[in-house]
Order: sequence, then C-alpha cells, then structure tokens
Amino acid sequence: MKKMAYQNVKGTQDYLPQDEAIRNQVKRTLEDVFLLYGCQSIETPILNYTELLASKYGGGAEILKEMYTLTDQGKRELALRYDLTIPFAKVVAMNPGIRKPFKRYEIGKVFRDGPIKAGRFREFTQCDVDVVGVESQAAEAELMMMAIEAFQKLGLDVRIQYNNRKLLAGMLEVLGVPKSEIADVTLTLDKLKKISIEGVSQELERKQVAVETINAIRSWLNKGETIDLNFFKGLAIDNILLQEGVKELSELKGLLKYLQLEYACIFNPFLARGLEIYTGTVYEIFLADSELKSSIGSGGRYDNAIGGLAGTNDKVSTVGISFGLDVILTAIKGRNQTKNVSNLDYYIIPIGMEKEALGVAKEYRQKGYKVEVELSGKKISKALDRANKEGIQAVIIIGENEVNANIIKIKDLKTGEEASLPFMF
Amino acid sequence: MKKMAYQNVKGTQDYLPQDEAIRNQVKRTLEDVFLLYGCQSIETPILNYTELLASKYGGGAEILKEMYTLTDQGKRELALRYDLTIPFAKVVAMNPGIRKPFKRYEIGKVFRDGPIKAGRFREFTQCDVDVVGVESQAAEAELMMMAIEAFQKLGLDVRIQYNNRKLLAGMLEVLGVPKSEIADVTLTLDKLKKISIEGVSQELERKQVAVETINAIRSWLNKGETIDLNFFKGLAIDNILLQEGVKELSELKGLLKYLQLEYACIFNPFLARGLEIYTGTVYEIFLADSELKSSIGSGGRYDNAIGGLAGTNDKVSTVGISFGLDVILTAIKGRNQTKNVSNLDYYIIPIGMEKEALGVAKEYRQKGYKVEVELSGKKISKALDRANKEGIQAVIIIGENEVNANIIKIKDLKTGEEASLPFMF
Repeated sequence: MKKMAYQNVKGTQDYLPQDEAIRNQVKRTLEDVFLLYGCQSIETPILNYTELLASKYGGGAEILKEMYTLTDQGKRELALRYDLTIPFAKVVAMNPGIRKPFKRYEIGKVFRDGPIKAGRFREFTQCDVDVVGVESQAAEAELMMMAIEAFQKLGLDVRIQYNNRKLLAGMLEVLGVPKSEIADVTLTLDKLKKISIEGVSQELERKQVAVETINAIRSWLNKGETIDLNFFKGLAIDNILLQEGVKELSELKGLLKYLQLEYACIFNPFLARGLEIYTGTVYEIFLADSELKSSIGSGGRYDNAIGGLAGTNDKVSTVGISFGLDVILTAIKGRNQTKNVSNLDYYIIPIGMEKEALGVAKEYRQKGYKVEVELSGKKISKALDRANKEGIQAVIIIGENEVNANIIKIKDLKTGEEASLPFMF
Repeated sequence: MKKMAYQNVKGTQDYLPQDEAIRNQVKRTLEDVFLLYGCQSIETPILNYTELLASKYGGGAEILKEMYTLTDQGKRELALRYDLTIPFAKVVAMNPGIRKPFKRYEIGKVFRDGPIKAGRFREFTQCDVDVVGVESQAAEAELMMMAIEAFQKLGLDVRIQYNNRKLLAGMLEVLGVPKSEIADVTLTLDKLKKISIEGVSQELERKQVAVETINAIRSWLNKGETIDLNFFKGLAIDNILLQEGVKELSELKGLLKYLQLEYACIFNPFLARGLEIYTGTVYEIFLADSELKSSIGSGGRYDNAIGGLAGTNDKVSTVGISFGLDVILTAIKGRNQTKNVSNLDYYIIPIGMEKEALGVAKEYRQKGYKVEVELSGKKISKALDRANKEGIQAVIIIGENEVNANIIKIKDLKTGEEASLPFMF
C-alpha cells in the first residue's frame, strides 16, 4: 500500500494518549459542572438531512459553504452536522412533549470543510449547553456563572464579554443604518477586533454604506471603553430596540452583580458575534491573561430558531453556550508544563511468571489500582528503562523466587526503597 | 419548512436524557476499567481516505459495501469509518516510535450504510480496546478478564465463548476442505447459530463444496458440545495449523484457569467470527441468562493487519476487543425497571425571587450538589407537580418572606418533612 493511504485527511488529526488524558479530564469536568447545573445529556446524530442543516435557522451562508454533503445508498441527500445547535433545535421540535425549561448538554464532533488556520480543524469537538423555556435574563446569568465555574475547575481564569443584539441593532439605527443593512453591518462589526476601526470602515465603504453613517459609526467606535450602559440609556428614548436592549442588559447586569460575577463579566457594546440567529444577549469567553486571541467559548440568545424550524414561527425562548475542546486543550497545555508522570499505580514486571503477574494484577485492580503487566517478555533492564522514562513510580517484580516464597517485591523508583509483601500465589 | 426536514435520517436516532444517563454511566464505567488495566486513550478522525478504509486489511467485502463515501471541496475521496480497528492500525503505522506494548482504548461513532434490523443502526458507538506488541496468549487472557470485570461493574453477568482460527482452519483441512476454500467455508460456519447445521450444509452445497467434505463437516458439527480440546489433540499430529491452534488454546485455557475465569469462559470449537483479518484467538461475549441472541462484544487476534497496512508485511502481534454501546444499553434497560428518580439533589422554586434563588444555587453547587432553579416563572403548584412527576426528593422554596428573614425552607417531597435553614441573602 502507498504511504499516502495512511496519512490523515487534511484538517483532521489523531489525539494521542498525552493529549487525550487532558481532553478526557476536560470532558469529565465540564460534564460534572453541567450536571451540577441540572443539565441533561442528549446525543444527536452526525448524519442529518441536508435540508435540515441548510435551514435558514442554521449556521448561515458562511457555514453552509463549508458543509460536507453525501448521498446514501437510498439516494438521501445527507450532510455532516457543522454545529450542535440545529440538532438540538430539531430534538425540541420533534419532541413537543419534552418538559420545559429543558436544559441539555451535548459533547460531540462537528465538521466544517473550511480553510485550515492555526488551531482550526475540519473535524472538531464542541461542548454545548442550551436552555429552552426561560424568558428572563436569569438564563443568561446562570450560563455565564456555569462557564466561570467550569473554567475555574479547569484552572483557567476567564473573562466574559457580553452585549445585546437589540442594543446593537438599535444603536446602528440611531447612527443612520437602514433596517435592511443592519445584519450586514453587524457582520462587519464582528471583525472589529481582527481588522480594527480602520478595517471596519473600509469594509463598510466597500459595502456602500453612506459616508455620514460610516463617520458616525467611526466616532462611536472611537469612544471605546469609555461608554457604559448609561451612554445608551440617554439615547434610548426614541428607539424601541435600544430601549429593550438597555432593559435586558440592566437586568443581566443586576443579576451578575448580585451573584458577584461582575469581576469576570464585562459589558462590551461593540461585541457582535457572527451568527445571524441571535436575537438578544450575546457573549464571548476569553482567557483573562491570554495571548490566545481566539475565544474559548461563546453563545447567546436565539428565540426564533426552534419555532422557525418547527414551522410554527412561535417565539421559543432559547439561550446557548458553546465551548471548543481544542482551544481549551491548547490553553491548558500552554499553562501547565506537561510533566512526565505516569497514570499507572503499579507496573508489574514478570520474570517468566506471566500467569502469576496477571493474578497479582487482578487483585490490585480489584482494589482500584491502575496496573499494567509487562506482557511483551521484555528483559527486566528494558522494562525498568521504560518505567523510568515514563515516570512510573512503583514497580512490582515477580520472578520464580517470589512465587515460591509467596511474596511480591514492590520497588519505589523515585526513592529506591523496596518492600516485600506476602501474596498467596 | 416541511415536516420531513426535521425527521432523523433512517438508521440514526437521538438519545434522550433517560437513555443518555445510562449510556454516560456505561461509558465512564468502561473507561475506568480500561484505565485500571493500563490502557491509554486515543481519538481518531471519523473522516478518512477511502483508500485507507478499503484496504484489504480492513473490514472485508461485506462491510465495504456499507461504507458511506463523499468527496470534499479539495476533491479528496473520503469515507466515514466503519470501525475503530483500521483507524487504530493507522495510528500505529503512522507512529512507529510509539512505545510497545501499546494498549489503547477508543469510544467513538462508526457508520455503516447497511440494512436496518432490530437494534441495528447506521450510526452507532463502539468501545474498543486493542493491544499491540504481546505475542503470548496473556494478551487475550487479560482482555477477557477485563471484559468480565467491566460487565460485572455494569451489573451484567456474561459468558465468553472462545476459539482459535488456526484450530478451525486446521480442522477444516483435516475434514477435506481445500486451502483456497477455507476462508469461504469459515464465513458460512459463522452463521451456524443463526441457520443451524442444516442451513450451513445447504449453503456449503450452494458454494459447491464436495459432498463428502460437507458430510464430514456435518458429522463434526453434530458432535456439538461433547468435544473438548482433547478431541483436537488426537487429530493434531499431522496438521501444523491444528497443532498451533491446540497449543495456543491450551496456553489460554491454563491462564483462564489460574485466573479463576473458567466459569465464564467457554471453549466453542465452532465459533468462527466473520472478519477475515483474524489470525488466532477469537471470542464473542454473551449475556449469561440472555434472550438477547446477538453478542454484546467480541474480538480476537489479528497479527497481519498493522504490518500489511504499513506496507512492511511484518507480523505485528495485535489483539482487540470491542463492545457495542447500544446492545449494552438494551441489556441494562431490560434488567432494571427504569425507576423515575431524578438526578437532582435540590430543585429550587423561586416565588418572584429569581436572583436570590440563583445565589442559593451557587452556594449549593459549590458544595457539590446538583441543583436546578425553576427559571420559567411557573406557578408553585405547577412546579411542585413537576417535582413529583420527575421523582425529585428535595425542594427549596424561596419567597419574599424567606429572603427577608434570611432563611430557606427545604421540603422533602417523599416524607413531607419541612426544615428551615439560615441563609444570608
């Protein structure tokens, strides 16, 4: 077979044991926190009807371009899911009897056939929590509290920037952007961090936004961090969207303050978030002391998707948050010098006595110890080399003498100490 | 949107919270046992080059017919993995420096576009452990011990039937099957349980096996459970394969006896296992007291796949075992009457006092309790209905009086008892 055949497909990768130990720990920690918050697990299929994923309540034009599609033997048009949100909305639409509020989590693979940049893959794992059935900002506050707690448990100090799409749309109206162009201008604003004010204003020019409007947006953006919620209160008198945005943000701010989370949650009036489905609060999570520019999680409120998908067009209150497993892995690896510490409690080296070694392993595992028996027939010196190289602390050597004397010898490779324990072979 | 769009694709399904609670418990239990046995996690991509998955060391013609294929935007010919074995062999071939013996586990989705029968899906989860680098039967014995322990921890009593492909091939030679037809006859034997001796002999007739050979096979099969390893010892004098098979099976039997696992491990000289890649021991796991006819796990030794895939054609000792998550779920659900017991420790019902309820939840979660706050604004009677319906035991009600008096009231819904505890709001 040609060598090419056993390469990985571009944009995919294998996770080897060292990374996997961290990833599995992250998944368990997240899952445990989700359960503390009363979330319930669902698992949805990776294979979906293309028609479902291409719905206008889906990921939007940019993501749809990156969708992997295929046809099955029954000639069905299928696609691989590109996020966990549409599959969640589908479950809610398909199961109208489901008790609400319904808080679900899902940790699973998603697929995007898009450009590969540093840290971006075509097959990657997302960890999502979504809540359906809560109208008040308490849903957002609880998800933000959950995110902070989850990252604390992972040893990562995070900051959450938040904003509200109503406030943003209202403000753009006040600045002179016509209703029909608001979604498009929002997409450009979403790039502010990447392309700065200059880049935003150039892109708006290319999008043929009126010059005086661009100037108004520029001077607003230039105010930067000096503006707080009070700035918008003053402008909100004539604009309903702005009024609603201010009201929701005030409610959220009050909750965050009461929950003593304000230190970690920062109002950012320019935060846009790309996806079109958002209808209210949006947020994005960053490492507190990060050189990592990309966010480590994000989400927001999308009250129109489930009703739209179910065909009823009812408003169905829904708020979600999503964490990227790969970016968390990178953050944790950047923080901790990965030490060479074995996961094993005991490494048993049999000298000819494999059967007896398996017997000892059986007993030790029943006591809850992680045990590996060296079954390759390696010489003892090679086996000890391996133990030292992998940072294994405790080695049990079992030879004929030990078996005849009904003892086992445990050697601590760090201290050099040796102990003999009775064992009935 | 048409209703069709939010159906699931044929052969796929959503797992809702009740099933997921069991599935996640099963996954964690398996993972914990795998770690006790010194296994390490790897995660491989779902997307692979078609050429890799179609390798002759892959799943064989029957499975290849069921492979989902697609083309990406870079015109690569891709396929969704149909098992976790070929991706594992690929990782070993791609990482020649990996320390051996290497024991890996992977729990992940696989895809087969095949016929749908009861309990068979097109997208399903497998849990695999494979060991590369152990030549002796100790690898098999340890995997069988691991399987028994894993299922014990899941509350399932299992029996493992085992055989050896060398023994089977040698016996077929002795019975007059030409070397070139042995693989094909083995495939027919694999159906023995399903189609019985009559069916096997009819299929062999259709495959134009010589009449006297079919008669010899029939009379051998008719001996049924009366034959043990001694039966083959007598025949092995002239046949090398049979000799090797007897030797390996004796070694394995000795290990199982020493490890006190013979009660659960039964030699079955007719066990064939479909896949062509097996080169030695094969085994299949069943529930001890089952009406479930399909196996709950299986595996065997395949010493030619990794060398074949890497293009060296070296013999690389490899043994694997695989469990199906869906069949385990079905077995557990069949056993336990699923009781309606909530996973929550506390369900907090605020009467207007949402903010304060979130504050109480924050403290209780920090103590490790699973807490849900009713944030939908439900009336207290409706919320209590929900609590009773879902089997929630402890409810905390927080109204204005409680907040003003700095107390919380905890009500045990099973006993009706109520307690007031101080809480500084």
